[in-house]
Amino acid sequence: MTAHVYDARLRRAGETAAAAGLAGLAVTPGADLVYLTGYAPPPLERLTLLVVGVGRDPVMLVPALESPAAASCPVGDRIEIVGWADGEDPYERAAALLGSGPFAITDSAWASHLLGLQRAAGGCSFVSVSASVPHLRAIKDEAELNLLRRVAEAADRAFAEVLSARFGGRSEREVAEEVAAALRRQGHEEVDFTIVGSGPNGASPHHEPGSRRIERGDAVVLDFGGRMDGYCSDITRTVVVGAPEPQIEEVYEVVRTAQQAAFEAIAPGVPAERVDAAARAVIAAAGYGGQFVHRTGHGIGLEVHEPPYIVAGNPTPLRPGMTFSIEPGIYLPNRFGVRIEDIVAVTDDGAVRLNQATRDLQTVA
Amino acid sequence: MTAHVYDARLRRAGETAAAAGLAGLAVTPGADLVYLTGYAPPPLERLTLLVVGVGRDPVMLVPALESPAAASCPVGDRIEIVGWADGEDPYERAAALLGSGPFAITDSAWASHLLGLQRAAGGCSFVSVSASVPHLRAIKDEAELNLLRRVAEAADRAFAEVLSARFGGRSEREVAEEVAAALRRQGHEEVDFTIVGSGPNGASPHHEPGSRRIERGDAVVLDFGGRMDGYCSDITRTVVVGAPEPQIEEVYEVVRTAQQAAFEAIAPGVPAERVDAAARAVIAAAGYGGQFVHRTGHGIGLEVHEPPYIVAGNPTPLRPGMTFSIEPGIYLPNRFGVRIEDIVAVTDDGAVRLNQATRDLQTVA
Repeated sequence: MTAHVYDARLRRAGETAAAAGLAGLAVTPGADLVYLTGYAPPPLERLTLLVVGVGRDPVMLVPALESPAAASCPVGDRIEIVGWADGEDPYERAAALLGSGPFAITDSAWASHLLGLQRAAGGCSFVSVSASVPHLRAIKDEAELNLLRRVAEAADRAFAEVLSARFGGRSEREVAEEVAAALRRQGHEEVDFTIVGSGPNGASPHHEPGSRRIERGDAVVLDFGGRMDGYCSDITRTVVVGAPEPQIEEVYEVVRTAQQAAFEAIAPGVPAERVDAAARAVIAAAGYGGQFVHRTGHGIGLEVHEPPYIVAGNPTPLRPGMTFSIEPGIYLPNRFGVRIEDIVAVTDDGAVRLNQATRDLQTVA
Repeated sequence: MTAHVYDARLRRAGETAAAAGLAGLAVTPGADLVYLTGYAPPPLERLTLLVVGVGRDPVMLVPALESPAAASCPVGDRIEIVGWADGEDPYERAAALLGSGPFAITDSAWASHLLGLQRAAGGCSFVSVSASVPHLRAIKDEAELNLLRRVAEAADRAFAEVLSARFGGRSEREVAEEVAAALRRQGHEEVDFTIVGSGPNGASPHHEPGSRRIERGDAVVLDFGGRMDGYCSDITRTVVVGAPEPQIEEVYEVVRTAQQAAFEAIAPGVPAERVDAAARAVIAAAGYGGQFVHRTGHGIGLEVHEPPYIVAGNPTPLRPGMTFSIEPGIYLPNRFGVRIEDIVAVTDDGAVRLNQATRDLQTVA
């Protein structure tokens, strides 16, 4: 991204904050800071805080020892950088920069930092970015959509590679390593997660791959993702080792139909919760309502989970350029699980899938 | 770690909270949770909260979809696990588990979670763990000391490998990749950071390795670390490409003497800030006081930075079993930097270095 992209984002962030009735944004290391400045220090115990005040120039408070690193970030020559030294109270310094009023703070800001700000900046109140300006990063521009498409396609190719791997007789952990290697071969710079939930373990949606040996007849939930150029992939497919038993086929078809229903429900103006409801209705009608134990999806971009959340109770109207997962699942304790997940982008009249890997039930060896 | 280790830690955590006048601990994913339960979910937007209430049994609130994963953690069969479903308000559920009174919350807990708890749990107040019970994990037991010694020795071996690499004519980024590969070859499961600050870039203590070609005569600050079995390494050495110019030798000797002075200042009962002062006095006496722009060190364990911090203003008395870095440095803008860092452990009558890599100025090719 060139510096003028960040200039535009910083300007828009100020406008977004003003429209939400805020005095500004209090941004700490992570996706919000990368999005607004291109600066990516590790989130640690020393306070780094970008203040985007409404009607004021942005200013960034950084640990003094990181001043040179901050100055060399993409906007280092165009925003004011203030250093604080070890032994000083950074929250007093931050309070002076914040002034007063309600600020939206980065969701993943450390609690210790928020407590420090609440103590020192008595004239300020804080709300989370996701609660007050959830769409700060939700609507992707063309460059971001291209990066998300590219990383999704790489994940698709990784899945295609994994299909030819041997599953039967190997441990989940071994298959997980194979998935990670495929992601890297297909261009991922980071691998963030590789869920391999085989047989009964597939009924645990966030199962940590372990020593269980995969058996003939197992359904295996594969949910994996990582990053290219900072943008995230996240795809789930469920495969079967050898011929599937009838109930796996039946459940698979319900989940696939639910995922398609979610996809078809997406259009500009549609409330996020209606996409969740569309998937849920299919699964409930098939008698598995109690076994779909999570929301239908989550936004994705510089973070693997970010607004908009596709969940009951979220009335947010979808808008073109929003990107999120649709990933209904059915989990039968002690038996198996099935989940199918694609990343989609909202278009002017519906949605497109960024993942194109087949959703037909695949058999592996 | 076996389950009884976690039982003992949970019991001691409750006692520590009581002694600090707290109603308990509010623990979110990360090092605190791993230390107390062995459970290591990723820190994300869905609330996972272990409540260690004084005089009560611990209870852990988890996203419903992660209930099976939580139940299979080392203490999953001995503490109560409560699931909350997507679409529910997890903070209302948490409030019921917390009750009332002052709680210490994990430093790195997400601000969005703390704000949710502050809203829903009106009878509770929150302070950070590092401000209220900073020594929750600071005093390492024998098993932890062995893990820290093992990972430090691996970092030492990685440094020895790197000494035979070619520096001159290569980019910082290439050397950083070499450092990362050496850490992995020496047994690190994760590489967390690989600072390579050559020539003028060495004057930026947290320099991000870039495209600068390393030249003959450069001082190069190498600061790297990662994890084995969850415990962290962190070592810094400064090397010179070919024969050093006199000022590099002079500054190096000042830093080495300061680091030795810090080491010799360590003993049970000594305030942490006195170790910082010992290093700082040497550097100030040599006329470089203004160029030592950071604290002398930080605790290390399951996190690479954790209490105790070796910094002016921290009166914490050192105690046997505490482990931390001593890493004075001198930074001459536009010229070069020198830093020397070892991890040390406080003993009954002083300290031992866990890093044994030579502190003599090394020349590389």
